[in-house]
This record gives sequence, structure tokens and C-alpha cells, in this order.
Amino acid sequence: MNVRIKKFREELSNEKLDGFIVYNPVNIRYLTGLEAEGILILSKYDNIYITDSRYIEEVRNKITIEDEIIVQDIKQVTDEDLINLLYDCERIGFEEKYITYSNYRNMIMKFRIKEAIEGNDILDKLREVKNKKEVEYIETACNITDSCFLYLQDFIKVGMTEKEIAFEIQKFFIENNADGVAFDSIVASGANTSMPHAVPTDKEIEYGDPILIDFGAKYKGYCADMTRMLFVGEIKDKYKEIYNIVLEAHDKALEKMKNGADTKAISNYVINEFKMYSYELIHALGHGVGLDVHEKPFFSPKNSYILKNNMVVTDEPGIYIPGEFGVRIEDTILINNSQPELLTKSNKNIMII
Amino acid sequence: MNVRIKKFREELSNEKLDGFIVYNPVNIRYLTGLEAEGILILSKYDNIYITDSRYIEEVRNKITIEDEIIVQDIKQVTDEDLINLLYDCERIGFEEKYITYSNYRNMIMKFRIKEAIEGNDILDKLREVKNKKEVEYIETACNITDSCFLYLQDFIKVGMTEKEIAFEIQKFFIENNADGVAFDSIVASGANTSMPHAVPTDKEIEYGDPILIDFGAKYKGYCADMTRMLFVGEIKDKYKEIYNIVLEAHDKALEKMKNGADTKAISNYVINEFKMYSYELIHALGHGVGLDVHEKPFFSPKNSYILKNNMVVTDEPGIYIPGEFGVRIEDTILINNSQPELLTKSNKNIMII
Repeated sequence: MNVRIKKFREELSNEKLDGFIVYNPVNIRYLTGLEAEGILILSKYDNIYITDSRYIEEVRNKITIEDEIIVQDIKQVTDEDLINLLYDCERIGFEEKYITYSNYRNMIMKFRIKEAIEGNDILDKLREVKNKKEVEYIETACNITDSCFLYLQDFIKVGMTEKEIAFEIQKFFIENNADGVAFDSIVASGANTSMPHAVPTDKEIEYGDPILIDFGAKYKGYCADMTRMLFVGEIKDKYKEIYNIVLEAHDKALEKMKNGADTKAISNYVINEFKMYSYELIHALGHGVGLDVHEKPFFSPKNSYILKNNMVVTDEPGIYIPGEFGVRIEDTILINNSQPELLTKSNKNIMII
Repeated sequence: MNVRIKKFREELSNEKLDGFIVYNPVNIRYLTGLEAEGILILSKYDNIYITDSRYIEEVRNKITIEDEIIVQDIKQVTDEDLINLLYDCERIGFEEKYITYSNYRNMIMKFRIKEAIEGNDILDKLREVKNKKEVEYIETACNITDSCFLYLQDFIKVGMTEKEIAFEIQKFFIENNADGVAFDSIVASGANTSMPHAVPTDKEIEYGDPILIDFGAKYKGYCADMTRMLFVGEIKDKYKEIYNIVLEAHDKALEKMKNGADTKAISNYVINEFKMYSYELIHALGHGVGLDVHEKPFFSPKNSYILKNNMVVTDEPGIYIPGEFGVRIEDTILINNSQPELLTKSNKNIMII
């Protein structure tokens, strides 16, 4: 059987679940490699993937006998069939963080589910620790992102708009063998840097502007996530000071990102560092990266996650002064024994272009 | 008060709802013009938008006194405040087709909701019929899409990959004042045309290939949706025959798309036309277009929707021969009394490049 489904089934058995219905296409991709639209049903003994006529041809071409996945066309599946699939199951897991309320209601009815159990955690946890291939894909995504940043240092000129730069990032990724962007790039200049989630505008780059670029390539479905600053022509002393506070926090947090460390403690450490300078960390310090650009584990003062080897996470402290200026410095990192490994390797010194 | 919120409140009152919680950012954009992340709460008398520190600055800049929307930073909102917001409400509407099961559970708890009522239909219906401004935006998106198709007829050459063409579409849109693509473009060539939802591959365009391009620009949030075929060098007689069957079905369905017509009847008409030639319509004949590229009304043999003036919909019959060849021809259309108006105007004759 497909190795990941096998491992998933072991976890289901640990949780005393008799089956699971997977709707989230990212989880289906993780478990099966398929990129179509459909539902994966794990009944007591069978793995069934139900798709429709738009995808059936692609899917049948991709699934091998070793996968042990039965592929069915929704048109050939009766209401009766769906009920029979899980007739001998009591506790069925589902993805409470993906499925809409309306689909939840339909699912219960269609499959006549006796006990629907929230099971998102099981899949989230399976995906937290990456295997060698996954780390390779993320590394490649990070390398492409680094190359793009080098390219941008030459490319960006006074008079260009934020939108133009964002588009150039996308173009670079596609021309350099990535699937595309892992998420909509943030390119913010001047006072726009003070908005952590700024959307690129038609504002032109001016002399003296700080530029914040938060971007990442996607490669074979896996994401990179990096933020760097560039300063056009010069940097104000005040900005330099803030930049260095953020960089120091970034580096100190990085040192702590080790197998066994608690994400909550690392977050609180940075929050307290910032407080000493009377600044505030207004967003999470970091998050896991994989098939989703934001996935478990998360770094926040609210929840603890224990870091494990081969998790891939970000380290992204930031300070924002409303209406004026903001700094964020972010890397994608592989947790690797006592020595966290930077997967994004771009220069973090103050860069004046 | 903001006009759309006022209209929405009238509908709530018709449905005997005391309030509504809007989570879907597309609905929030429709109602308020805001593009941030947050929740819009309509209590008995107030409209409250709760966002976080990442967006608060942008949002406060955008909302005017006339909007009558109270903007709050989630950090300043206590658990007690949330409970008090809806304390005097019994029936609260929510978006059952957007909210996840997990957020549904949180919502009920956080707001102490007495009766949660599925209210997606109310918002879907408000959005079905477009106003003048919305039609203008969709028209602009369609014009940009048409210009792009003209451009592609020159641009596409033997040896180019499907991916390269898809990228060029995106580039064209951004360079021509669109927000970007309304959805991931489908560029399928040769046998790939037989998969209705083909993802662009590294396959190179060859002499004799049919090419199917399903694409659309987005302009100020509004979508265009069009599918056209191109034939490289020549077209086989068999393909010509199928093309003409699809084109005829497209044109006949178009004639029927009038104020008061039933989408189910129009779908069934095309299904029967195809049956006469022993072909099958394996996907929906069309769908509404607006802030989402797929929205109400839908054209399928399952559900009836009655067309109204100023709805914007697609007409997209298709025939697919697995592993060999497929044709789809699609326009975006404005329902306009007895004369449906093509918003996408590109040539639909067989085009050989």
C-alpha cells in the first residue's frame, strides 16, 4: 500500500477511528500524489478515491496497483454505494478545519455517519515532520527564492512600482523552474512597509525608500517563505536602529530553534526582547512550511508546539511603526539537531541599492 | 449607511434574522469594499468590523463615517464584548458554505449564539444581479481577455510549451491594467484538450495540434471567463465536425439566455442536442460570474435558477473524447431583456494559426 496512507492508517487505529474522509486537496496530494478534485475515503479495508469525469482519465493514468487505491467515477457511484462504503464503521474522522459547515452536513447524511470525529490534527501532525524528498523540494524552492532576491537587487530601480516588482518575482519563479509563487508576494515601499500584509500598489519606488519584500517560490507543491529589506540610496539612523533590533531578535530566536524546544517559549523570548525597546511583536514569530505556506507548528504566545528534527519553520520577527516604517526579516529553517539550518540563505546585512 | 449593507439588512429582516456574521472575505468586500482579513458582524443596530493589527491602519483609512461601520482591533475586544454584541439576538445568520466546521463551532461558543441560521443564499442572491458599476468592471475584464486572445494568435508558435503560453496570459493581464488572472488559465494542446480541467504542462505545441485556452482577467475584483480553440496549421475533418456541433449548441443556448428563462431547461436542451450526435455534456453548461469566477446562478440538469436582467453568466458547452480531443467554446454574457449581450467578443469561427 502507498506508504503515507499506511502510516495514516496506523494513526487512525491509534485514535480508534474506523475510517476517514479526506476532502482537502492538499491532504489528498500529500497522501496520494493526486492533484485532481475528489474525495479520498478510507473505509475499514479499502482506500477509495472518487472523482468526476473531468479528472478520471488523469487519475487512472497516475495511480498504480501498488498504491491500493480504488478509483471511481462519481457518476458510477449510487447513493446506496456511499452508504455501504462505511456501513461497518462507527467512528469516522474528518477535517474539521477544511470542510465547510454545509459539506459537513452533507457528509453526515450521504455516508450515514454514526460518529463524526474531528481528525484534522492527525493529518497536520503527519505533515509536520518532513521526509528527505520533501526537504529537498523545500530547499529547491528556497534556492530559487534566494536567486530571485539576488536578481531583484539589480533589477529594482527608482520609478518602478511595487506591482511591477511583484510581477517580476512571479516571472522569475516561473522562468526558473518553480511551479510559481507560494503565496502572493508582498512588496511594500516607504510608509507602506508599516503594514505587515501590504498588497503591492502602484506607488513608485523613491530615493530614500525602505522596501520590504516577503516572497517565496513553490516547487513540486512545496513552499519557501522569506522576507528581506532593501534601502534605496540611504538609510535613516532610526531605521538602522530598528533594523538591528529585529535582526538581533531573528538571530537569537534562530539559535533557540532546536529539536525539543517549545515554540511558545521562543515567541515569548522575542516578545520580551522587543518590550525592552518599547516595541511590540504584532504577529506570530513563525510557522511551519510545507505543502501549505502556513502549517503546523506555529510560534505564538498562545500555544506550545515542541520542535522536532526535520520540521521546516520560519523565523520572522518584525517591528512596525504605523504610517511610517516597518521591518521584517524572515528565513525558512530546517530543524536539525542542535544546529538549525537556514534553507533561505540570502544576505541579511543592511543592503543599500 | 453603506447602501449594500442597508439592502442586506432588509433581506435579513425579511428572513426574520436578528443579525449576521460574515466571514467570507469576498462577501465582506462586496458589502464594504474592504480587502483585509476580519469579520463583519451585523448586530441588531450596529455594523462592526473586527480586524487585527496587521490591517487596522488600512481599514481605518478606507471606512468613512457614511459607511456606519464601527472598526475594532481584535486586541481591544474581550470575550465579554463578543458575547454582548449579539446578546439581544435570537436568530443569527452565517455562511454555511464558507465557514469551516471548526470555525462554526468556535462562532457558536464565542458569540453565545442561540440559533444559527444558514444564510449563504441571502448573500448569494444579493450578488446575482449586478449593478452598473459591476457590469462595467466585468466588461473591462472581458475586454482585456479579448485583447489577450488577439495577442495570443500572433504569439503562439510551434515549440512553445503550454506553461509558457499560460504565463504569457498572466503577463499580458498584468501589463494591461488587470488585477491578474481570474483563475489559473487552462492551456491544453493535442490530446490534453480532452481533459476539461487540464493543468498546463511542459508539452510543446506541435503542427496539427488543437489548442484549448480557458482564461479570464480580473479587474477591480471582478472576473471574466472565456474559452477559445486554436488549430495549428490544419484541422482534421472529425475535429471540425465536433467543433461545429459545440458551436451550434453554444449559439442556440445563448439565444435562450433571457430574462425569465430557466437554467435547468437550457442545460437539458444542450444535453439533448449532444445526445442526438451520441455525445455527452460532462460538465455544467454555465455559471454566474462576478467577484467569484463561479457563483450563482448555475446551469445544470439538477437545479433551476430563473435568469434575470443584469445577471452575468457563462455559456460553455463542451465535447471531450478521452485521450484524443476536446472542444469547449465559452463566453461571458450579460442577461439583458430578450437580447443576451456577449461581454467576451472574440471570434468563434474555426481559427487556424
